[in-house]
Formats: sequence, C-alpha cells, structure tokens
Amino acid sequence: MNVKKQSIFLILLAALLVGFIGAYTAVKVTEPNTNTEQKQDQVGKTKDNTEESAELSTEVPEDMTKVTQAYNLIQEHYVEDVDEKELLEGAIQGMLETLDDPYSTYMDVESMENFNEQIESSFEGIGAEVSMVNGQVTIIAPIKDSPAEHASLKPNDQILSIDDEDLKGLDLNEAVEKIRGEKGSEVTLEIKRPGVSDPFNVVVTRDKIPLETVYSDLQTIDGKKTGILELTSFSETTADDFAKELEKLEAKNIEGLVIDVRGNPGGLLDAVEEIMEHFITKDQPYVQIEDKSGDKQPYFSSLSEEKEYPINVLIDEGSASASEILAVAMKETDHEIIGETSFGKGTVQQAVPLGDGSTIKLTFFKWLSPKGTWIHEDGVEPTIEKKQPDYYYTNPVQLDKTLEFDDTNEDIKNVQIMLIGLGYETDRKDGFFDKDTEKSVQSFQEDHDLKVTGKIDEKTAGSIEAEIIDKIRNGEDDQQLEEALDVLYK
Amino acid sequence: MNVKKQSIFLILLAALLVGFIGAYTAVKVTEPNTNTEQKQDQVGKTKDNTEESAELSTEVPEDMTKVTQAYNLIQEHYVEDVDEKELLEGAIQGMLETLDDPYSTYMDVESMENFNEQIESSFEGIGAEVSMVNGQVTIIAPIKDSPAEHASLKPNDQILSIDDEDLKGLDLNEAVEKIRGEKGSEVTLEIKRPGVSDPFNVVVTRDKIPLETVYSDLQTIDGKKTGILELTSFSETTADDFAKELEKLEAKNIEGLVIDVRGNPGGLLDAVEEIMEHFITKDQPYVQIEDKSGDKQPYFSSLSEEKEYPINVLIDEGSASASEILAVAMKETDHEIIGETSFGKGTVQQAVPLGDGSTIKLTFFKWLSPKGTWIHEDGVEPTIEKKQPDYYYTNPVQLDKTLEFDDTNEDIKNVQIMLIGLGYETDRKDGFFDKDTEKSVQSFQEDHDLKVTGKIDEKTAGSIEAEIIDKIRNGEDDQQLEEALDVLYK
Repeated sequence: MNVKKQSIFLILLAALLVGFIGAYTAVKVTEPNTNTEQKQDQVGKTKDNTEESAELSTEVPEDMTKVTQAYNLIQEHYVEDVDEKELLEGAIQGMLETLDDPYSTYMDVESMENFNEQIESSFEGIGAEVSMVNGQVTIIAPIKDSPAEHASLKPNDQILSIDDEDLKGLDLNEAVEKIRGEKGSEVTLEIKRPGVSDPFNVVVTRDKIPLETVYSDLQTIDGKKTGILELTSFSETTADDFAKELEKLEAKNIEGLVIDVRGNPGGLLDAVEEIMEHFITKDQPYVQIEDKSGDKQPYFSSLSEEKEYPINVLIDEGSASASEILAVAMKETDHEIIGETSFGKGTVQQAVPLGDGSTIKLTFFKWLSPKGTWIHEDGVEPTIEKKQPDYYYTNPVQLDKTLEFDDTNEDIKNVQIMLIGLGYETDRKDGFFDKDTEKSVQSFQEDHDLKVTGKIDEKTAGSIEAEIIDKIRNGEDDQQLEEALDVLYK
Repeated sequence: MNVKKQSIFLILLAALLVGFIGAYTAVKVTEPNTNTEQKQDQVGKTKDNTEESAELSTEVPEDMTKVTQAYNLIQEHYVEDVDEKELLEGAIQGMLETLDDPYSTYMDVESMENFNEQIESSFEGIGAEVSMVNGQVTIIAPIKDSPAEHASLKPNDQILSIDDEDLKGLDLNEAVEKIRGEKGSEVTLEIKRPGVSDPFNVVVTRDKIPLETVYSDLQTIDGKKTGILELTSFSETTADDFAKELEKLEAKNIEGLVIDVRGNPGGLLDAVEEIMEHFITKDQPYVQIEDKSGDKQPYFSSLSEEKEYPINVLIDEGSASASEILAVAMKETDHEIIGETSFGKGTVQQAVPLGDGSTIKLTFFKWLSPKGTWIHEDGVEPTIEKKQPDYYYTNPVQLDKTLEFDDTNEDIKNVQIMLIGLGYETDRKDGFFDKDTEKSVQSFQEDHDLKVTGKIDEKTAGSIEAEIIDKIRNGEDDQQLEEALDVLYK
C-alpha cells in the first residue's frame, strides 16, 4: 500500500517535485487525432505528421540571416571556446522561450531518455525511493522486489558515497543520477544505518524497475466496501492497470469508489481517455480539443450507463493536466471533487523528433472541459474544499545553528507546526521560540530518548521531521481522504 | 552636491539597481584596439571590424538546419499566434544564454536607445530622480534646471497617475518608461504632495536632460584642503568632466584626493583609460587586455610623474567593470583602497550592430590588472575594509498589516535597524517586536507628530524610511568616506 506516497513527496521534495511537474506535465499528453474514429492509427498517424513537418521545416526563412550572423559572430569572437552544438540548441530553446509557455520545450537526447522512462513507467536502477533528509541522501523505501530490497537496504539508510565518490555538495537529482545506471551494472553504496555505529558498503546490481502508477485499497465505510484507486501518473501502463484493479474491486462488490489523483502531474492523454471510458457516458463529450485555428473537437466514449455506485475524486494543487481532465469531467457529470484547487494546465503537447535523437515538445492544442471551460491557470475547483493538517505543508528544516528560546525565524515556525502535528502543542506557530515552544521541544526529546535541552539542534530537528514523514506515510491523518470517504454515501 | 546619490539608490532601489548593473556593466566597455598606437582611429576601426563580421556571418553553417526546422515547426503548429521577429530574437538570445555570460546580450532597437542614452550621458524626459517608496512612485529630487524643477515638482511628491493612467501595479521601470518621452512632448502628472490634502495635476514639457557623472567636493581635513571626486559611471563625457573638476581642485591647491566609485557600474573603457592617464605612470601598464587566443596586450600611459599629493579610492560591491579597472590599478600602484570588495567583472564587451538597429554586445576580451590578475567574480579587495552603518543595507518595508508587540518578521528587523540608525535604540534587531522596540517606536512617533501607538503602521514605517533616506542623502554618517579621509594623510 502506498496511498500516501505523493504527500511525502509534497512535503519533503518540494523543489524536486516542482521540477518534475514542469517536466512531466509538459509531456506529450498525447497526439490527439482530429478524427476520433481513427484511434487505432494514432501512433502511426503521428509519425506521418512528424515527418511532414520535418520536410516542411528545411525551407530557410529570409530573416534567419540575422540568426546566422549572430551564430557566426559568437563562434568567431566570443572570448571563450564555444560549443557549436550547444549554441544551436540554445537557439531552439530561445525560440521556445519567447512563446512564454513552460510546456513547449526542447529535449536533448538525454532528456528524451528520462522522458521515455516516465512514459514507459520503468527505469533502470536499484529501485529505491530516496529523499534529502538533513542534507543526507536517505532511502525512504526500497521498491518491492527490487535490487535495493534484495540487497537488504532499509528505510532511513543514509547513503554517504556512491562507488567511493562522496555525495557531499550534490543535490538529490545529481545523487540520483549517480545511483542510476544500466541493467546488470553494479554500484557500491556506502551506508550509514541508524543504530549501527560504523558505515558499511552494500553492492547492488541494477535492474529494470517497473514504476507502479496505480495503487488500490479497500476500506469499509459505514459498513460498505469502498474502493480507493490512487493514480500517481498517466503512463503507458496506467489505463490497463487501472482497469485490472477496478475489476478486482468490483469483483469484491464495492459499493463506492474514490479516485485519488492528488500530486499526479499528468501524462499521456490516451491513458486518461481510456480511464474516463469507465465513467463518462456517451451523452456528453469527456473532453474537447481546440486547435490553433480555434476549432473545437468533442471526444465521446461509447459508454451507455454510469456506474451504479457513487464515485468521487480527490485532487490537490499537485494534480495537473491529465488529472484535471479526469477531475473536471467527473465534476461536470455531478461527482463530488474533494481537496484543493488543482494546478491549472489546460494544454496538450506533441513530441516532434528532430531526427538526431532530440525532440521538441510543442503545445499544439488546448483542452476544454466537457462543457467547454478552459481551466488553464485557474485549475479545477473542488466541490468540497478540504486542506490537509498544517504539517503537510511544512518545509524541511535546514539548520545553520542550534535554535533556542528567544530566537525567531522560519525554521522555528516549521518545527512548531510539526510539533503541533505530533501532538506537542505550542501556543505560537509564527516562528518565535517562546517558553511554551521550549517545553514542547523538551517533551518531544524526553519521549524520543534525546538529550533534554529544550533546544532544536540537528538531531532533534531530524527526529521531529522523521516522525512527521512517518505520520504522513502511514496516512493516519489524511483528512482529505477521510472527507472523501465521509461524503461518499451522503 | 550629490556625493551620496549612489547610496540612496543602493538602499532604496536594490532591485532596480541590480537590473541596472546587469545592463550597464554589460555595456560595450569599449572596443580596445589590439594596436595601442592607433588610439585615435578607434571608432573608425571598430566600424570596419563590425562590417567585416557582418560579411562573414551570412555563411549558413550546416547544423543551422535544425534551428530552421524548429522555427518552421513552431510557426506552423504552436497553438497561439507567433511573432516571427520575436522568435528570431529569441533564437539569438538563446544562443547568447548558452555562453553563461551575463554580459553577452542581445539588444533590440529600444534597448539600444536606452543604452545610447547611458553612454551619451543624457536622456529625454522630465529630469527627476524617482524611486518606489511604500509602493508609490515618489520623486526623490528634480535634477537641477530640469523641466521637473521648472514645473515646481518637489522631493517626496508621489506620482499617482501619468496622462490619466493609474500607476497601480506598475513597477518602477514601467512607470519611468511612461514618464519619459521625446523632447518637446507634454506629460501630465497627478501629484499627491505631503501636507496638501487633494492631489493636483502638473503638466511638464519634456526636454533633453544631461546626466552628470562627476561630482566634486572640497573638504578641509586636518587643516588640509582635500578634494573628493565621485564618479557615478563612465560615459562619453566623464573623462573630460573629471579632468575639468580635477583641474579646478588643483587650482585650489588640494593636498589630497579621494576618488569615489562606489555604486559605479562601469561604462566605457576609453573613459577610465583617460582618467588613469592622470595617475598611473608609464612605468607599468594601467591595464592588460587578453584576447580569445590568450594573448595579453599591456596598455601604458604617457605619464612621467605621479601626483605629489596622496590619493585613495572608495569602492563597494556596486563598483564594477571600469570602476574596478581604476581601483585595482590604483591598488597595485600603492594607493589605499577603502570600502568593501567590489562587484567582480573582468571582461570587455563590444557592441556589434546587426544592421537593423539591433545589436549584439559580446564579450570579446578579458581585462587583467597591471600585474596580470583577473579579478572576475572575485572583485577588488580594499586595502582597508570598511562597511557603512547597518541601516545603509536595509530594505524598503512593504507592510501587509500593522506590526505590533509580539509580532515577528523581516520587516520588523528592517525597521529595528533603521530606528537604531536614527538614534532610537532597541535591544533587538532580529525581527522580534519586543517591549523595547515598542518604546522606540513610541519615541519616534512622539518626535514626529505621529499618533503615539507603539505600532508600526504604514505612516510610521514611511516616516522612518523617509528619515533614513534623508540621513543617507545628507551623507552625515558616511563612515566609508570618513575612513577614506581619515587615512589619507597617515
């Protein structure tokens, strides 16, 4: 069960996640056909399109002379050596930037590989979810049946070095890049394990790691069997996995369903289309696609009857793109949407290869809700607004020095909110370290076998953070999900 | 006298100034000749160079095909309308960005006009120094003999609207753009003047405004007449103005000189070269210029004898480029350099017109100190480190709400430092609003005919800020200058 994975990322990896949203919702959500009947030909058709544009594109427009002049000037006269390939890639990136559209991007060969891993829902590596905790790359959890699990890596293991290379000064992305590698290759991790005095080495053989995008759960609410399906992104396997899990739940005679797309940054339009086929009847479009000329093309399912059981959808500000297509279609067909206003991405990109392994993702279309609303930049508003407890929204604490009574800053504010979340009440949560905060810190330290100083040092802060992460992971305080279950049969 | 103008900008217009540094130090510091003997031909020679590169530049490199493909793809398929000119400018900007050099930039026709105004030390407008105070565009001072002064605009006048257009939501740059305009044109400013109940309109006829870059002052230190020459930038008129002011001071028999380039972002290499001719003898180069191939060309003055009086130089982190060329040459010829480590820009740009009014400023050269040091990114370290009082480094306060006892945030920290600077001691300056801070606020309010609440509301904050600005303007507490004068005869 991993229903709360997204939340942990939200709280811990704010920076990383933002990068991820940027990249991933930008993803070729799909190549929507203007002809809905030719669905089977879609991939083939796209290829044709691409070649068409590639052919068109070699005509040199007259104004390009100015760009050529600039290119030659830089090459000949810039004080440092110039990488010609980078220069040309810069030109393409520069053109895309003028569009003022974060979803139209250039991807070099390397970016395309990462992109394909996301789309294909698999990557080659050791199969561990890692995060930056107190400045240390830390294993949150090994993925089930992965090399990391087989090598007995444990949650909270800190990775000190990779193949004898110290990780100090690297950010999480850089560290992850070093851990990843081709299937079959070996990597040596130096591990510091809590409770074990000396660091030790673990050798892991990398393998292909499937990325699950659908997580299913079954709960009994008011005596009724209730399914919960969480979608973490819309990749090539998502629609099939969703169908299988839904079938399993229905075989168990569920009487209600919650679809959770919180923190889901989107993905392939195909995937969300197939999923909507289960729920949105042919009486209205499930989405409309608008092209450059303003023509709107409605897309319909072949579904005659709605599900008999109630269904609602969980969203938050991390739900983007394909997640919003689903959420707004469900909303406009009178389902409850619970949570927070979603991200607001109302465009569809197409990936156009440039022939040398690089690709331009370009915004070709807008998508509109069944009723024709463009949610871009506005997001989808929930029908029932519900936030998580405050501590879900705290940031990791980066201590420069031990914090104590009479200090005041943002870190203290975060710690106060975390302490309250863990049941250690403090009368302030504005970042001023008062006597009451000191008492709460002392209580926490007593309960966790820490030296009772009433001061927030690195160890205490790390311990408070670890508790918060555990609490979010366990999902014991997921008030949005509780609300969604609560209103399902009302 | 305006010796302190820079400091005011430093404290008030941090954001604007950063932009300005970016733009202005990027300026074609000059077109240094590889042949030092042909100095007179410099401008002519540059033109030739430029045309040469323009000729070369129309050869289309093969890889440009990829850029052309991207251009055509975007034009044909991007969901919104595309401005072709912008697209091509984006391509040029994108190429320049790959250089990772903030000083290599593309300037469109409009940017070039602004750039030329800076170089030529004049612009067309109303002639008032303005700033953003409490979210209002506010006149700091009308320039002497300017249309603004003739129209009786006063310091602290707030500009509410320009030609009936409300300024709300505009930043300072956008507002300034609206106030500026061609010589002879009229602009109507709606003015709110402190102490006058209703706003009123003032019509100003724009004119050509000279920008002074040299300010001279004479003080008696230890009974010795001492000249102070402040340079605010290095423009076309700066070297001549400097020579004239220096001559005037020497005619008054000064016994020492302080050259103040604090906050001076640089400008034309020619200008600083001419100024160095007064001080750096022919016994060592005053600067060395290194080209793409690594060849170093030393430049020499024709000066035989040093000045008989002592000279030192004032720098701070706003002193960049040409200012640093001067400072490091003076430092390496055994003059005292007082203040803070300078900005650190060790490159020389050349402006290359593209034929359509737009221009590429490209880094052609590095400049090295007389002894061959490249100060890029390091800056010039003073021989005598001296900071200004803390309040020089405070930021403008932007109140969301009235601040009072027991609150804690960055704004309070700024106000505490300002209060201390104005002689209202507070025992904390960390942003926590304690009883002692409340007392100081009350004292300030009493002394300034404000309602005595002990709370920081907009009026109180504005009044505190205005006092600080006045204090900095008056230069009564310029500890760097005091230090420079202090050590001059030691």
